[in-house]
Amino acid sequence: MAKDITSRSQDYSQWYIDIVLKTGLADYSAVKGCMIIKPYGFAIWELMHDALDKMFKDTGHVNAYFPLFIPKSFLSKEAAHIEGFAKECAVVTHYRLKNADDGSGVIVDPEAKLEEELIVRPTSETIIWDAYRGWIQSYRDLPLLINQWANVVRWEMRTRLFLRTAEFLWQEGHTAHATRQEAEAETLTMLNIYERFAVEWMSLPVLKGVKTENERFAGAVDTYCIEALMQDGKALQAGTSHFLGQNFAKAFEVQFSTKDNTLEYVWATSWGVSTRLMGALVMAHSDDDGLVLPPKLAPTQVVIVPIPKLLPELDEAIGKLEKELKGLGIRVKVDKDDQNRPGFKFAEYEKLGIPVRIAIGARDLAAGTIEVARRDTKEKTNIPLDGIANYIDNLLGEIQRNLYNRALIFREENTTSVDTWQEFVDVIEHKGGFVSAHWDGSTETELLIKEETKATIRCIPMSNSSEPGNCIRTGKPSKQRVLFAVAY
Amino acid sequence: MAKDITSRSQDYSQWYIDIVLKTGLADYSAVKGCMIIKPYGFAIWELMHDALDKMFKDTGHVNAYFPLFIPKSFLSKEAAHIEGFAKECAVVTHYRLKNADDGSGVIVDPEAKLEEELIVRPTSETIIWDAYRGWIQSYRDLPLLINQWANVVRWEMRTRLFLRTAEFLWQEGHTAHATRQEAEAETLTMLNIYERFAVEWMSLPVLKGVKTENERFAGAVDTYCIEALMQDGKALQAGTSHFLGQNFAKAFEVQFSTKDNTLEYVWATSWGVSTRLMGALVMAHSDDDGLVLPPKLAPTQVVIVPIPKLLPELDEAIGKLEKELKGLGIRVKVDKDDQNRPGFKFAEYEKLGIPVRIAIGARDLAAGTIEVARRDTKEKTNIPLDGIANYIDNLLGEIQRNLYNRALIFREENTTSVDTWQEFVDVIEHKGGFVSAHWDGSTETELLIKEETKATIRCIPMSNSSEPGNCIRTGKPSKQRVLFAVAY
Repeated sequence: MAKDITSRSQDYSQWYIDIVLKTGLADYSAVKGCMIIKPYGFAIWELMHDALDKMFKDTGHVNAYFPLFIPKSFLSKEAAHIEGFAKECAVVTHYRLKNADDGSGVIVDPEAKLEEELIVRPTSETIIWDAYRGWIQSYRDLPLLINQWANVVRWEMRTRLFLRTAEFLWQEGHTAHATRQEAEAETLTMLNIYERFAVEWMSLPVLKGVKTENERFAGAVDTYCIEALMQDGKALQAGTSHFLGQNFAKAFEVQFSTKDNTLEYVWATSWGVSTRLMGALVMAHSDDDGLVLPPKLAPTQVVIVPIPKLLPELDEAIGKLEKELKGLGIRVKVDKDDQNRPGFKFAEYEKLGIPVRIAIGARDLAAGTIEVARRDTKEKTNIPLDGIANYIDNLLGEIQRNLYNRALIFREENTTSVDTWQEFVDVIEHKGGFVSAHWDGSTETELLIKEETKATIRCIPMSNSSEPGNCIRTGKPSKQRVLFAVAY
Repeated sequence: MAKDITSRSQDYSQWYIDIVLKTGLADYSAVKGCMIIKPYGFAIWELMHDALDKMFKDTGHVNAYFPLFIPKSFLSKEAAHIEGFAKECAVVTHYRLKNADDGSGVIVDPEAKLEEELIVRPTSETIIWDAYRGWIQSYRDLPLLINQWANVVRWEMRTRLFLRTAEFLWQEGHTAHATRQEAEAETLTMLNIYERFAVEWMSLPVLKGVKTENERFAGAVDTYCIEALMQDGKALQAGTSHFLGQNFAKAFEVQFSTKDNTLEYVWATSWGVSTRLMGALVMAHSDDDGLVLPPKLAPTQVVIVPIPKLLPELDEAIGKLEKELKGLGIRVKVDKDDQNRPGFKFAEYEKLGIPVRIAIGARDLAAGTIEVARRDTKEKTNIPLDGIANYIDNLLGEIQRNLYNRALIFREENTTSVDTWQEFVDVIEHKGGFVSAHWDGSTETELLIKEETKATIRCIPMSNSSEPGNCIRTGKPSKQRVLFAVAY
């Protein structure tokens, strides 16, 4: 166990915070609720960004950038939308400061009051659909498949690094379509991209499903999501894809002329993932020694540590190995520091979650082998130098898969099917994890269960088979099981 | 001349706006002074981003992300800084909206007033140096070489797409060093990177220089800049690199213990370029037919237009050519549309500034040649199909260089050395461009000249040789010429 990281069994929340702070992923800032993403954390986010961005572009999407500010009146145009976002927004009311007359310092200039307040975007449907009105006239202008990478602000009272911050970074896709069918297909296409990203890049198994009315995005007809399970048995919503119907087109009067020359409202989707994924990544795989990163998202995938330090006789062999690994596209670092001892370095690289550590000394070199340590299993093996680069390349793939499998087994072990209220309460309270249970379909019951147990319906899984039963809370008839959990 | 674009001779400002709007680079938004960067414009910005980001990383810099908001009191900590930025900032005063009691709509909740107002960052020195205080203790923590890509807001009253908008995108580097010498070297390293980017990527000749005290960044000891000349003879500041001395370290109490175990204030630099470069790119090269893009920053470098359309007999040859070009890393598009005529398409691609257009018909194919048109010179040439991919690859390089040379010749023709006030006024008023003249070194004279002619001192060029003379306005002695121009 790393000495500066609290163990999970002792205090899971503190363990998470320790990892985030002490591996340099993020830091608190002077502004309440706003975090600083530090270079190591940002390097991981850049890898996420690049992978997602490529997946978006490969499916025909393009990037654009819309204003940070939204006129207050815009938020009100879609009735459900304002209900969802008014409570937690940063409001710009003035555009100038001035020196106080009494010399006490700088104050807001009361003369510089905006006619209409501006809201720092909590999400951009309104400002984007206002623009789309000017861009869409005919079916020939459709579909519009636009994404933006941006910062957004939601004034959260209780914040937690990466998981819930006042400002966060995200991407938000906003697409416009001529038909309902096409928009629905887009919603699912993006959901599948999020699932693929979670599985292939984050080694994170996720469940795809649809949200209940109560958990739906403010302004959506249907909200789809991917839900993941963290090591403390809590669920985390890792991405959402919304079918917005014609709600925003109607609110912003966006109509198009069809091939038959009739006017129709445009169909919409929106979808997003955020820096919250960084929190999911940390919590899904890390351990009491620090971060554990899936190789595809590790800024450094392999670190080479000379033992005891970079002596001249090692230099050539290490340089050759470095070059071979880079030739395979592997992100490798050679530790050239000669101040710290190998043991200290090993602990540091473990804490940083670097997937593979290679230790190489003069004696190893003579024997023609080097020591390879995996971060995920902590196994150390002596491997022949001959063919080592390909071995490492394969090993990175194996670690990527192993992390996924480990998380999948954990999720399976922590998904419980229950049929009685007593069982439900017991599992939520003591075991945690996902609980599959019948529910009568009413928001009233959903809220009652939340109040009594803190568990919410994470989703109605898309893999569900219809299965008649009785609601665990009310006993009323139910058509299918839904997935409950206490969530982040 | 493109029919929907005003000619430069008729109205240069309108020509610029027409190009930006009608090629889909950007659009106005519902928020005064805030622009929308549309997909085509954003694709160019992404190419700029990627090139600069690589240059930063190759010189040891890393990315991070700091909060959007700055506590009002932070801005005041550096005296010159608040003077420079207080007049033009967006102020967040509240964090919640609510329904008006009279049912009239949504209003700002007066109960949700912030204790201290937050400023939407106009630049991030203050919030970053506040963080650096916690990150820097010893010389071993230095240097910090951090950059961020972010949006910033400066409340401009008179805005112009890309060139001056309330919100814009930029990168801002903020580095911390143990010695003055190292910080000064960093300032120049980054200035040189900006120059290299302008020259090699934007085909834009720039002059490097240092700003006068009056034009210095608010809080800097020295501000270096690159200055470019636009086609209307106005100058445009394309990037700045500031040596900040210990000003921010002192304002935010950032000290480090040296090797000798004494405490010293940290030395700082900051440097940035913004989406303003998009405006420079448009104005430097474009013509009355539309955009002209240097190939390295063209989202599509080559477009292949089948004549009259994509007939089956052309399909194979075009597919082969497309593959060959892609194999060379060229961004190529095949126009598969069969609605519009070739002539219409040619005009569209000219307007979009695509560097090379290939027209290919069945007859050409039989003759073994295709028509290649350059956007920069409008030349059309029949080129043998054999070896065409390499020909195109070389042609792209030639266009990149030709645009640079053309802009350089224009700048040389529009740089005038003058020695009398009458000449100065005359050149500024009638010829425009850069004017090299003696100045007595006082801010008073600088401001007087600005008032009388609108010309400002763009910089004291770094290539200057010392040359005694007399100030064109006051006749007082001067040690060297400086560069004047009317600027954007």
